[in-house]
Formats: sequence, C-alpha cells, structure tokens
Amino acid sequence: MISVAEARSRILAALRPVGQEIVPLAGAYGRVLGADINARVAHPPADVSAMDGYAVRAEDAVPGLRLRVIGEAPAGHPFAGNVGRGEAVRLFTGSFVPAGADAILIQENTLPAPGGVEVTEPVTAGRHIRRQGQDFALGDVLLAAGGRMTVRDVALGAAGNHPWVRVFRRPRVAILATGDEISLPGEALGVGGIVNSNSTMLAALVSAYGGEAFVLPAAGDDAAAIAAAADSARGADLLVTTGGASVGAHDLVQAGLGRQGFALDFWKIAMRPGKPLIFGRIGDMPVLGLPGNPVSAYVCAVLYLGPALAVLAGQAAAGPVFEAARLQGSLGPNDVREDYLRARLHRRDGGWVVEPFVRQDSAMLTPLAASGALLRRPPFQPALADGDVVEIIRLGL
Amino acid sequence: MISVAEARSRILAALRPVGQEIVPLAGAYGRVLGADINARVAHPPADVSAMDGYAVRAEDAVPGLRLRVIGEAPAGHPFAGNVGRGEAVRLFTGSFVPAGADAILIQENTLPAPGGVEVTEPVTAGRHIRRQGQDFALGDVLLAAGGRMTVRDVALGAAGNHPWVRVFRRPRVAILATGDEISLPGEALGVGGIVNSNSTMLAALVSAYGGEAFVLPAAGDDAAAIAAAADSARGADLLVTTGGASVGAHDLVQAGLGRQGFALDFWKIAMRPGKPLIFGRIGDMPVLGLPGNPVSAYVCAVLYLGPALAVLAGQAAAGPVFEAARLQGSLGPNDVREDYLRARLHRRDGGWVVEPFVRQDSAMLTPLAASGALLRRPPFQPALADGDVVEIIRLGL
Repeated sequence: MISVAEARSRILAALRPVGQEIVPLAGAYGRVLGADINARVAHPPADVSAMDGYAVRAEDAVPGLRLRVIGEAPAGHPFAGNVGRGEAVRLFTGSFVPAGADAILIQENTLPAPGGVEVTEPVTAGRHIRRQGQDFALGDVLLAAGGRMTVRDVALGAAGNHPWVRVFRRPRVAILATGDEISLPGEALGVGGIVNSNSTMLAALVSAYGGEAFVLPAAGDDAAAIAAAADSARGADLLVTTGGASVGAHDLVQAGLGRQGFALDFWKIAMRPGKPLIFGRIGDMPVLGLPGNPVSAYVCAVLYLGPALAVLAGQAAAGPVFEAARLQGSLGPNDVREDYLRARLHRRDGGWVVEPFVRQDSAMLTPLAASGALLRRPPFQPALADGDVVEIIRLGL
Repeated sequence: MISVAEARSRILAALRPVGQEIVPLAGAYGRVLGADINARVAHPPADVSAMDGYAVRAEDAVPGLRLRVIGEAPAGHPFAGNVGRGEAVRLFTGSFVPAGADAILIQENTLPAPGGVEVTEPVTAGRHIRRQGQDFALGDVLLAAGGRMTVRDVALGAAGNHPWVRVFRRPRVAILATGDEISLPGEALGVGGIVNSNSTMLAALVSAYGGEAFVLPAAGDDAAAIAAAADSARGADLLVTTGGASVGAHDLVQAGLGRQGFALDFWKIAMRPGKPLIFGRIGDMPVLGLPGNPVSAYVCAVLYLGPALAVLAGQAAAGPVFEAARLQGSLGPNDVREDYLRARLHRRDGGWVVEPFVRQDSAMLTPLAASGALLRRPPFQPALADGDVVEIIRLGL
C-alpha cells in the first residue's frame, strides 16, 4: 500500500497534456488556455471621459467664466478639432477626449449660458479622464497559458479584441463499469442485480471537471469481456474502470486489462474508502481503476481523477484544496489508512463546522449526497475532540 | 435611489419559474429538479455482503469448527438454497446473503479444510452484512424538487433507478448591448470605437448560471433601433440590456424600450458600481438594464442576474453568499452608496484575507479578472483599519 500523496504524484507524473484546438471566445468559459492572450488594442483605446460633461482646459475652468461650446462628441463620434482657450466640447461617458483639452468639467459644475456654459466649480488637470491604456496597453499579456478561463477572463479576452482562443481540447475519458450484477438506470434488474450508478456519476463528474466522457457498455465479471471493452476505449486520453479491483476470484479487471498489455504502476492505497485503486497504462493510454462502491469511486475521483483531468487539460499538477474547519463531535484514533469521512458542513461565526456522518459505509449514497465536505484524517491521527481543527475538502460537485 | 437589498427583492418577487422538461439523468448535472425523485428500488435491494468471505450462521462460527461449503454466490448470482447448521456459502462483496445465514465470516478468518473451511475467529450475528434498504427504501424521497443537482445527486438518482428526470428548463436570456461606439471582438474598430466585451461576458455568465443566452445584434444609440431589438427578444424569459442606462442625452434604453410598452419598476440603486440599474417589464418579459461599464455590469450580474436566474430556474429566492474575511490595508468611511470593491483574496491561518485594489475604476477589467472577491461595504460604514472583519462574495466565475 502506498500513501495518498504518493499515489497522486505518481498518477500526475505519468500524464501529459492533450493537444490544443481553437474555439470561439464565447464558448471558452472553463477551458484551459493553450497560449497567452495579448492585447490587440489598448483599453481604453484613447483618453476617454469617465463622466457626462465638457472637455476643457483646466486653466480655463474658473468659476464665473463662460466657455464657448464648439461641438458635441458622443461616445463613438470623436470631435475632430482642437479645444482652444475659453472653449469646451460637450462629452459623454466613454467619449474620446479631444486634442487641447486636459480635464472634464462635469455637467453638474456648469450652468447654461448663451452659446456655451458658465463654470461653477474649478477642475484640476486630468480630472475624470480615463487614460489611454490605463486598463491595458497594446501587446500586454492579458491572460497566461495554462489558466482555466473564468467569465471575467472571457470578458478580458473580448476587451483585448479576440474572437478566437487557443485552448487545450477537452480530455476524452472512457468509462467502463464492470460486474455481473449491474444494470443501467431504468433497465430491468436481474435477480441479485443492482443499479449501476457509477457510470452516470463518473460521466457527469468528468464533464463537470471539463472533460468529455464516453460510457462504454458494462463488462461482466469475465476477463475476455473486460479485455474487449478496454480495446474499444483505445484513443481515449484516459480509461477509468470501476469495480473488479479487489482481491476476490471475481475481481478480474487486472486480468482483463492484462490481455491488452496493461502495465501496472501501482495497486492499493493506504486510504479509506478506496484502498483497491489501480493505476497503470495500456500502451499510451493511462488507466485508472476505481473501486466499485460508489462512495469509494466518488472519493477517489475527487482525490485523483479531478487532478488528473486538470493535468491532461494543460494545468499545473495540484491536489484538491483543503480548508480548515472545527470538528463537531469526537473521533477515535485513526489507523494506518488516510481517512476521508463524509460529513455535513455548517457555518458558525464565519467559520466552518464539520460533522461526520455516523455511518461511513462506502456503499451508501444518501449521506454522500447530503455531505458538504470530506473530512481528511491522516494515518495514525490521534483521537479528536469536539472543536478540534481538522482539514476538509468542500464538495461542490 | 433604492437599496441593493430592496432592488434584489423587487426583482426576485417579479419573477416566476419557467416551465419544465424531461432530460436524461446523465445530462442533469446542474439542473434544478422539477419534482421529487423517489426510489424505485431499495438500496441495497437485499441483504448483501460487505466483504469477501462466507455466509454462515453466527452460532456455528466457533474457532476450530469445520463448515461445509455448499455453494458459491458471486455478486449477481444469488444462492438459491438455504444455509443450514454447519454449512457455509462462499460470497463476495455485493453478493446477496442466502437464506439461513446471519453473518459473513471473512476470508481472513478461515483456513482451507477438506470440503469446506475451518473457522479461526468467531463472528457476531449481522456482521459484514449491508441490510436491505440501509441506504434507502423503496419509495423514499431521494431528492427534493427545487434543488440544483450535484454529481452526487445524479449518482443517487441513478441508484434509485431513474433514467430520466423532470427539471426546469434553462431560462432563456436575450442579451442586448447598446451604444454607437461598440464592435464585437475581432471586428474592425471604428474611429472612437471600443470593443463590446459585455455581450460575450454576459452570455458566458448566463450559461455558467445554468441559463441559455442568445446575443442580439447590438443597437446603436437610437431609440428606434433599441425598440426593434427589444421586439426581437420577445419569447425570452428575461431581456438583459447593457449601456444607455444613465441620464445623458444618448442614454436611450428607457426611451427605446418605452416604444415596446416598457413598464418601469425602478431605476437607480444606491450602490457603487452600478448605480443606473433599470428594472421593469415589456408585457410578460422582465427586463434588467445593466450599466455599460463592464465591471459595473459584472457586479450587477453577480448581485441581481445570478439570483434572478436561480428563481427563473425554479430555486428559492436568495442573494449571493457572503463570507467573512480580514481586511488588508485600510479604507476611509463609506458614503450613501453600498460599495462592492474588487479585491485580491489570500488564505492566511485558515481564514481569508481580502485586499482591495487601489484603483476601483468601473471600466477596468484587469483588476476584475485578478479579483478573488468583491468586498461589500454597507452605506455609511465607518473607516476600516487593517485586520478588521469585512464581508466578501467569493468570485468563482
């Protein structure tokens, strides 16, 4: 058995990013940038007014003085001439500031006057002007390769005048559930049968992590069937199996994959749930063998599959984010295995309080669905009392 | 000017959920359930073994005693007979427990013996058996209407044997940017022109919030053009405009919408950025008029559009989630407007530290993209010192 940290670093070290593609910026939210995005325009493109008012020479803005209004320049319609001594041009938010002017006298600080306006308050040079390139200059790196684009990044790419962006394509993940007992949701259950929730769960999770899932028809507990299914996964960036990973005579995933030339990297991790995790490869295709119990499969997906998909999609290798929380209740000492307890999560006094479910059975989905967090317990952690600070992973997916 | 809280509650009170549709469970992640999901099977469907081992009568599991193995029942292949005195049936994880047996003697607690196994450790009745319905019983409510489905909820729906689910359809949001000066990303910029980042940003945001956006061709600063565009939005669940919302002679959104029978609910909110927000309706279609500056538009989208889309999609009315953070730096007293400062967010000692950008210009996208949070300042909040506790909204999108 190896540790969780070692397992994750061995998995992530074995993966290489997928290729890149061009997508419309409008569809690039959540995608990982394949190249830097540089500004193709300055923003603002020129000195612009931040208010409705008048472009003036600040030295002319003397209370009581009248300014001659020589034109009007709404946003998108710049004034072509020059603002001279005693002159003003009517501007609006976003209007380009005409040559000669060095300040915006806001509307509220003027009174109407014949042929122009009367100044009621002075203004300092530069006031209410957004400078050309104050947000970014032509050529600036707006967004760096390897980042996952937020909506705000999309806005920044748009402001930089990019209709297309270069991103890593979505990693393609083949999902193979194994077991004689499983049927797809809605199909008739055989005697001794159980519904296969793993395939649908993992497909949704892959998609939520930014990948593209394809669900293979399930394979029974039969090495030849597993081998044939694995063969049909070729071309995937990752094959994920569930079930058949333990030590029983009917745990045939390794035997089945072996017929396709499977090279094992490691098997079994000192963790709970999820001990019988398998990792290796068939040719160039990495293979992650998850346990069959849905809770174990989910927890292993959070710890290994999510980080793996991020690396495949071009991001830097990283584990899940841990946060601090206070324990509600108490827990006995932990054993050799790193534990991930399903737990309710509450807010109290601005911090997190985490309350593990009493029943931690790895086949029980209702407590998993009701969990706000996984509570991590390192190997051999001593007993914990109510109020102790622990580490959690918040569950958003 | 009305308050942020009043504006949000007036917007949310004016909205009704959209209709419902049926979607495959596999595509239901992130959707809002339109009806409860009840279990169509029990989970587990029968008493099943949680380990590899032998189904026995606990009273027979006396160390040194030999048990006759009368059959084997892998998962999916239940044993049809009865386990009698001195008998055992070989089981595996997930196997149904045969009649007569009341415990699982794990493999490690046996030794091979002629025709059977020798017991090496005793076992108590019920040990290593997952009881029928221990996760959920037939007919149990697994997921309640109005909840947004996580991946774990999808797994629970699958385990409940549902291939289809009833969800609210994605709210359809028409997006209309206005202004003579704007061009789409990648198009040639006119003299005095600027790139329209709002349409692409809002389309991505609507999609991230679970809606379906359609971007209308932009309308210039012309009431007739705005009226025609608004007309083409009919059938949308919400029309969102940007720009033209202020008081200038070229702020024509209200005039343009008015030609389509726009009924104003309110205009102007005591907030910064985002003061000139408009809300009303054209016939049955609600209309949210966002400011033209991209940062103002984004902040208003977080405060109003996100909650509005949740209500349209069938969720309960709620505002954004606030968390506590410590201020890095100091801030002067606030004025009459509720302030939402763009800010960096760091972790320190398990808590959040928030550092507002010095430049809070509402046209600047680079600080917005670099922000981890919006820092909320209530109206008339006194000056704040380094380390004071403040309220933040974390920005994930």
